[in-house]
Parts: sequence; structure tokens; C-alpha cells
Amino acid sequence: MGASDSGTHENHHPYAPQSVKLPGFVPGFLSQSTILGVYGISSLLVVFITWLISGRSPKKSKLDRWLMCWWAFTGLTHLILEGYFAFSPEFYKDKSACYLAEVWKEYSKGDSRYAFRDAGVVAVEGLTAVIEGPACLLAVYAIAKGKSYSYVLQLAISLGQLYGTAVYFITAYLEGDHFAATPLYYYAYYIAANASWVVIPTLISIRSWKRICAAVQAQGQKKNKTR
Amino acid sequence: MGASDSGTHENHHPYAPQSVKLPGFVPGFLSQSTILGVYGISSLLVVFITWLISGRSPKKSKLDRWLMCWWAFTGLTHLILEGYFAFSPEFYKDKSACYLAEVWKEYSKGDSRYAFRDAGVVAVEGLTAVIEGPACLLAVYAIAKGKSYSYVLQLAISLGQLYGTAVYFITAYLEGDHFAATPLYYYAYYIAANASWVVIPTLISIRSWKRICAAVQAQGQKKNKTR
Repeated sequence: MGASDSGTHENHHPYAPQSVKLPGFVPGFLSQSTILGVYGISSLLVVFITWLISGRSPKKSKLDRWLMCWWAFTGLTHLILEGYFAFSPEFYKDKSACYLAEVWKEYSKGDSRYAFRDAGVVAVEGLTAVIEGPACLLAVYAIAKGKSYSYVLQLAISLGQLYGTAVYFITAYLEGDHFAATPLYYYAYYIAANASWVVIPTLISIRSWKRICAAVQAQGQKKNKTR
Repeated sequence: MGASDSGTHENHHPYAPQSVKLPGFVPGFLSQSTILGVYGISSLLVVFITWLISGRSPKKSKLDRWLMCWWAFTGLTHLILEGYFAFSPEFYKDKSACYLAEVWKEYSKGDSRYAFRDAGVVAVEGLTAVIEGPACLLAVYAIAKGKSYSYVLQLAISLGQLYGTAVYFITAYLEGDHFAATPLYYYAYYIAANASWVVIPTLISIRSWKRICAAVQAQGQKKNKTR
């Protein structure tokens, strides 16, 4: 995937549709395997460290420990990767082989709206980075300390992630769904890489919802008894 | 505001920016006061009927009754007005003086992205109409029957409304914020008409969040006591 052209031709970019110009584009320097490898290894490291730390508290169930790992991983992804994108409108011009710019140059092959700065994508990524990112890290803390707002916080973030992903997919559909360079990038980046943020938030939302309802119901019964 | 031109000129529309073409546009038939009057009176009627019906249940607090009125009003607005918009891509060509088409021809003076079919606006309005609309009516029922999911449902819908409104305003800002025909339309339609969907969902979110935390905390204390 690596390229060394300095990108002097205005229309010389690997994104679809080719008819859209991207003046000043500088091709990526890192290979696909380097980009994915760094993200994969960093993520595994975050999960491993969170798992170890969460194990110090003897009361935590395995599920709660896995949830802490998820919130740490997704929170750091939101803050660092998506935070960089949201506030770097010119990442595609980067010449320094900055890893974060390289990530988005690569991901744009699956969804060129990142390189072309689609307002819907930037709005969703901005909200995700600024609001959901810190909220995810708060969720790690809330589960660790058994805070009473733990379930409602997890539900709120998960619903936000689902809403954002829905806007993300629906706007692409409405705009013609022609933003992937090849079908492989479409399925690997656009579909598969986003699937976790549909499946996991759905499962967490259902679990949190049920726990909250059970707590409210228990409180209601208690109130009726004391009457 | 009424106009009778049949709109044969492709670029003859009252929306900003004028440079964007809107082929087949047919000017509105109803006056601004008729459009706003019908919406205002219908809304008051919905609130009045919900208030009367909610009063039959002696246990309901005044706040719960007001919340039922809000959910009935906002739910019907989502379902009928926004549902019509989401699934009527050619409303601006309507020649039948259909009230719902007239509403959006008029509102587009405050935000032309409705007439021009901006993907972000359509995505948010579609989610609002299809998911939040029915959920709001379920909230009326949930409060009326004192269901255990009442608070969590109200929180989920309110956060969805806040997320949608945030995407709505942020995308407009990113795209240049030049979609209002005049400053009056900007402040009256774009800002003031949407303000309720920032203020009220924020207040409901805070209230629901606190109630849920209190219930979870009470359950936690109960569990500790029984140990």
C-alpha cells in the first residue's frame, strides 16, 4: 500500500469517486500491515493492562472486567484516533508520516468522506471524540468503583455510539454509497471495522436497560411496602 | 408569504444560497400565519387532550402530567411532520397545497438544507421519525401506567433528541451556516424553533439520570444489608 509520490497532481489520490479533487494530497508512507499492526497491538496492550488492573479488585465479575477493557479500548480510540481526525482537516496533506494521519489516509480508502471532509462524518466524529471519549474512560472508573451511575452512563454512551453509527451509515446510503476504493476496502474497513460499534453497544444497551429497570422496579416495590 | 407562481423557472426559489438550483420548485400556497397557526392550535389541542386524560389517574403528579403532554406533542411532531419530510424527497414540488409540504416549504426559509435534501438532515429526521416518534408515544403510556422502564425510556429518547440536534447544528456550522433566507428566519425558525429540543430534553435527561441513580443506589444498599 505504501507510496512515495509527493502528490503534486491535484487529482492523484486513491479514493472514490476519483472525480472529486483533493488538492495537496500526499500519499501514505506506512504500509497497511504497519498501520493495522500498530493499532492492533496497541489495542491488545490497552486490553491487557486494563484486565490486569481490574483483577486487583476481588469483587469484579469477569463480565465487568471485560466491560472495563471495552470501555478503555473504545474510549482511547475515540479520544486519540477520532479526536485527531475531527480536529485535523488537512491530515491528507501530511508529509511527516505521522501515524494518526496515516491511519485516516488508509481508512479513507474504505470511506473517502473522511478525506473529503463530509460534514456529517466530521460532526459525528467530533461528538464521539469530545463527549463519548472522556465518558468511556469515566465508565472504566465507574465500573471499577461500583458507582451508582455506572449502568446509566454505559447506556448513554452505547446509545450515543449507536446513534452516531446510524447517522454514519444512513448518510453514506443517502449520498450514493460510492465512497470505497474497492469492494475489499468497503467490506473490510467500512463494514467490518464498524460492526463492533453496532454489536457491542447494542448488547451493553440491552444489559444496562434491564439492570436499570430491575432497580427501578425494586425501588417501586419497596415504596409500596412501606406505605 | 403566499405566492402563486407555478415555479417554471428552475432557480426561482426563496431559499439561501440562491446559487443552488431547485428544479420543479412550486412556491407555497398557504400564508405563514396559517402554517404556524395550524401547528400551534393542533399542538395546544394535543396538550389539552393529554392533560385531561392524564388527570383521570389520581396518582399522577403535575410534573408527570406535563411530561405526558410533552411526549405526546413531540412524538406526534416527530411522527407526522418529520415523518412526512423524511419520506417525501419531492415535497418542494407539491402543487396540492398539502399542509405538510407547506410546512417544510416554509421551514426551509430558515434552513434550506430541507429543500436541498442534505443527507445529514435527512438521516437525523429519519431516525427521529422512525425510532423516536413511536418511542415518545410509548413514553406517554409508560408514565401513565407507571412502568419500570419509564425513566430509562425518557432518558434514551431525550439523549437521542440531543444527539440529533447536535448533529443538526454542527453540520450546518461546518457547511458554512448560510442556509437561512434572512436573519429573521435564521433566528425564528433555525434557532428558536429548535431551542425547545435542546432545553427540554436536557432537563428531562438530568431528572431521569438522577432518578435512575437513586434507584440503583437504593438497590445496592439493600443488597449490602441483606448480606
